[in-house]
Amino acid sequence: MQKCTVALYGCGTVGMGVAQALLARGALNERIGDRVHLKYVVDVRLEEIRGVLQPPEGLVLTDDLAQPLDDPEVDAVVELFGGTTAARTVVERALAAGKDVVTANKALLAEHGDELFRLARAHGRAIAFEGSVAGGIPVIAAIRTGLVGDRIESIYGIVNGTCNYVLTRMLEQEMPYARALAEAQERGYAEADPRLDIEGSDSAHKLVVLARLAFGVNVRLDQIPCEGIAGVELSDLRYARALGYTLKLLVIGIRRGERLELRVHPALLRHDHPVAGVGGAHNAVCIHGSHVGEIVLTGLGAGRMPTSSAVISDIARIALGTYRTDFAALSPFGDVPDAHLVPFGEVETRHYFRLDCADRPGVLAKVANILGEENISIASVRQQEAAAPGEDVVPVVFMTHRAKEGAVARALDRINQLDVVRGERTRMLRVEDI
Amino acid sequence: MQKCTVALYGCGTVGMGVAQALLARGALNERIGDRVHLKYVVDVRLEEIRGVLQPPEGLVLTDDLAQPLDDPEVDAVVELFGGTTAARTVVERALAAGKDVVTANKALLAEHGDELFRLARAHGRAIAFEGSVAGGIPVIAAIRTGLVGDRIESIYGIVNGTCNYVLTRMLEQEMPYARALAEAQERGYAEADPRLDIEGSDSAHKLVVLARLAFGVNVRLDQIPCEGIAGVELSDLRYARALGYTLKLLVIGIRRGERLELRVHPALLRHDHPVAGVGGAHNAVCIHGSHVGEIVLTGLGAGRMPTSSAVISDIARIALGTYRTDFAALSPFGDVPDAHLVPFGEVETRHYFRLDCADRPGVLAKVANILGEENISIASVRQQEAAAPGEDVVPVVFMTHRAKEGAVARALDRINQLDVVRGERTRMLRVEDI
Repeated sequence: MQKCTVALYGCGTVGMGVAQALLARGALNERIGDRVHLKYVVDVRLEEIRGVLQPPEGLVLTDDLAQPLDDPEVDAVVELFGGTTAARTVVERALAAGKDVVTANKALLAEHGDELFRLARAHGRAIAFEGSVAGGIPVIAAIRTGLVGDRIESIYGIVNGTCNYVLTRMLEQEMPYARALAEAQERGYAEADPRLDIEGSDSAHKLVVLARLAFGVNVRLDQIPCEGIAGVELSDLRYARALGYTLKLLVIGIRRGERLELRVHPALLRHDHPVAGVGGAHNAVCIHGSHVGEIVLTGLGAGRMPTSSAVISDIARIALGTYRTDFAALSPFGDVPDAHLVPFGEVETRHYFRLDCADRPGVLAKVANILGEENISIASVRQQEAAAPGEDVVPVVFMTHRAKEGAVARALDRINQLDVVRGERTRMLRVEDI
Repeated sequence: MQKCTVALYGCGTVGMGVAQALLARGALNERIGDRVHLKYVVDVRLEEIRGVLQPPEGLVLTDDLAQPLDDPEVDAVVELFGGTTAARTVVERALAAGKDVVTANKALLAEHGDELFRLARAHGRAIAFEGSVAGGIPVIAAIRTGLVGDRIESIYGIVNGTCNYVLTRMLEQEMPYARALAEAQERGYAEADPRLDIEGSDSAHKLVVLARLAFGVNVRLDQIPCEGIAGVELSDLRYARALGYTLKLLVIGIRRGERLELRVHPALLRHDHPVAGVGGAHNAVCIHGSHVGEIVLTGLGAGRMPTSSAVISDIARIALGTYRTDFAALSPFGDVPDAHLVPFGEVETRHYFRLDCADRPGVLAKVANILGEENISIASVRQQEAAAPGEDVVPVVFMTHRAKEGAVARALDRINQLDVVRGERTRMLRVEDI
C-alpha cells in the first residue's frame, strides 16, 4: 500500500480537528487502511499545539514554513492558514515542489484560483478544496463528479452559517441585528471581525468557486454584485414573515442562455421553499441539473468538525490518487473561459420595499406614480401600524412583480427624494422565486 | 486520452436516458472530453429502440447477451435489466471477462452484492452503483468518499418515491390509499405491479446497500424487519397531522454500540423535521457522521433523467479509472463482517395507536391497564369523533412514550382481544425522534 505523507499548515480550529482525526487513526483508517501519515504540523503557536496534540514519535511540530516543502517525503500539503498571503506562498511552493494541495481557503481560490489551478496542472499536481464551501456537506464532489453528466442550470443557497445564524436568531428571538451578531460572536459562530461574513464577501468567494465548477467559467470576485446583511432590520423580517416569506443571505448562480447571473444578497424566500426552513448555522445548496432536476444538500457549513470532515475526504482522495486524475481530466480545472455575466441592472426579481411615509393623504399616489413611470408593477401594498404611538410616520410595504434592478434603483432614488418619504429609512429586499 | 467502450444492457426507462445522453455528447463530453464510446445496446425490443435512438454508425443494437461480453474492446458493462436473473448472469460474465460494471439494480445488490463484490475484486474490476439508491442524488458517493473520515452513526430517510408520492397525495388531496396508488400508476410513478414499492421491499434493498457502505457490514435482506404502506389509512394521516406529525415510509439504520438497528416501516415525523416536508416522488437521505454532524440530501429519487444522471456519473468514474481505485481500496467493498443486528423486539420508539373502541364507560381503563402491565407509558390520549353519526364505535388515539417493539406487540395482542375493541381495526404506527 502506497503511503501519503502529509504536512499540515495551520493548526487552528479546523487544522486541529484534522490533525486529531489523522492521529486518532479512526474511521479513515478503517476505510482506506493505514495510508495517510501526518508528518508535519506547521504553526507559530508551537507550545499551545504541543499541549493539545501531544505529538507522537514521528510528527514534527515546526514554525518553519520551508522545512516540509523541502522534504521530498512529503506528498501533500494541507493549507489551513486562511488568508491570501502566506497561504498563497505555501500553495505555490508546494505545487512547484511536486506536492498535491488540499485547502479549505475560499478567499485564496476566489482571488487566485485560476493561476493556482494552472500552476497545479503545469506541475501535474492537484488542488482539492471540498472544505472551502459548505463545510462537510460534499457539495464540491457532488458537482465535480456526481453531476458530471448534467448541464447545471442553476446553483444557489446559503453558504454562510454566521449570517444564517444571525438572521435566524433575529426572527426567532425578536432580537435586533446588533444583539444577534453579538450573540453569534459569543458563541463562536462569528469571528471577532465579522465583516467578511456579514458583508457577504465570504459568500461571494464561495460563489466564485461554485461557478467555476458548475458553469466551467472563470469569475473575478469584483464581477459579483454583493450585498451583506448589515442593513437588515427586525421589522423587515417580521413584515416578510407576515407576507409568507423568510429572509436568507443567498448566493445565486443562474444560466441565462450564453450568459450567467451571479449575485450575493439577502433575499426573501417563500416559507415552503426547502431553503427557507434551513436555520441556525446550517448551510443549504440547491443545484438544478439538466438530468437530475433539483437536488438540495444541507448540513452544518462551518466549524472544526464539519470542515475537517471535508478536508479529510480530500486527503483520502489525494492519498488514493483519484483526485489527481479528476483534476487533470475535468474541464472546470483546466483553461476555462471568462464568465460572461448579465449586468446587474438587467437582473429581474420581484421586490419588497418598505418606505417610512408621512401619514398624510396622497402619499401612496406619489409613490405609485413613480413606480408606474419606471414600469414597476405593484403586486400588493400594506400600510403597517406606526412604529410607536403618536408617530406621524408609518411604514408602507410594497411587493412588486418582476422588475429590473436598474429600474428599481432609479425608482427608489426618486421615491427617496419625495418630501413625504424618509428616504434614509427606505429598505429594499429582493424576492426570489427560484 | 484513453477511451472507455461501453455496452448497455437494458434500454428501458433509465437505459434510454443513458443511451441518449451518451449519444448526444453533451455535458459529459464537455467535462471529461470524448472518453466514453457507447458501442452496444442490448435489449429484445430492437425495432422500438432503433426507432427512438436512430443509432449512429458504430453503435450495435443487439438482443445477443454474449456478443458484447465476448468483445475485447468493451471495457464496461452497464446493467439496467433490473431483476436478479439475467442481470446477475450478465454482471458475473462481465466481471469474469475483465470488464467493469455499472448498475442501478438494488435488488441484485441486496441479494447478491456480497458475492458480486468478491468476484469483482478477484478479477481486479469494480461495480459502481450510484443509481441504485435515491436516483440522481449522489448519496452513494457522499458516503463512499465524502464522509470517508466519518464514523457514520445513523443513516435514514425516504428512498422510495412511489410510496412518498402516495402518502403525499393521500394527505394533500384527502384521497384514500387505493385512489392515490391508482393515480401514481396512471402518472407512471408506480409500476403496474407496485408490490416491490408498496410492501417496502424496494426500500429494504436500498437499506442493504446503504448499510454496507455506511457501517461496513454485510446484511441479508431477510434480517431487515420490513413493513410497507399498504395498510395505511387516510384517517391515521389526519390524526397524525392534528398531533403535529407527518407519515413517511422510512429506511432506518442506527449504530447501537457494537450492534445495528436496521428497519423499514412507515413512521411519524414531527412536522418540523427536515424530512417531513419532502413530498411527492422526492427522496431524502439523512446521514449523521461523527465529524460532519447531520447532512440531508434531497431530490428526485427515480425516473429516467435523475437515475441516468447517476449512471452517467458512474460511467465517468469508470472511464477515468478512479472508481476502480476506490473499489479496490475502500473497506466496504471488501470482506466485511456480517451485520450484528438489534433484535426487532428490543427496538425502542414512541408509538401511535388508533383503537376503534366501543363508546362505553370503562374502556379506557381496560386499555390503560394492559399498557401499564406491559410497561408502556401513555404520553397522550385523544378520543376522536365517531367516524359516522350514530356509530357506537369511536376511534381513540394514544401516543406512548418510548417502548420496546416486543412489549408493544404483546400489549396490542391483548388489547385486540378485549371485547370493547374492534381488534381487526387497530392501527399502530411508530413515531421517530431521529
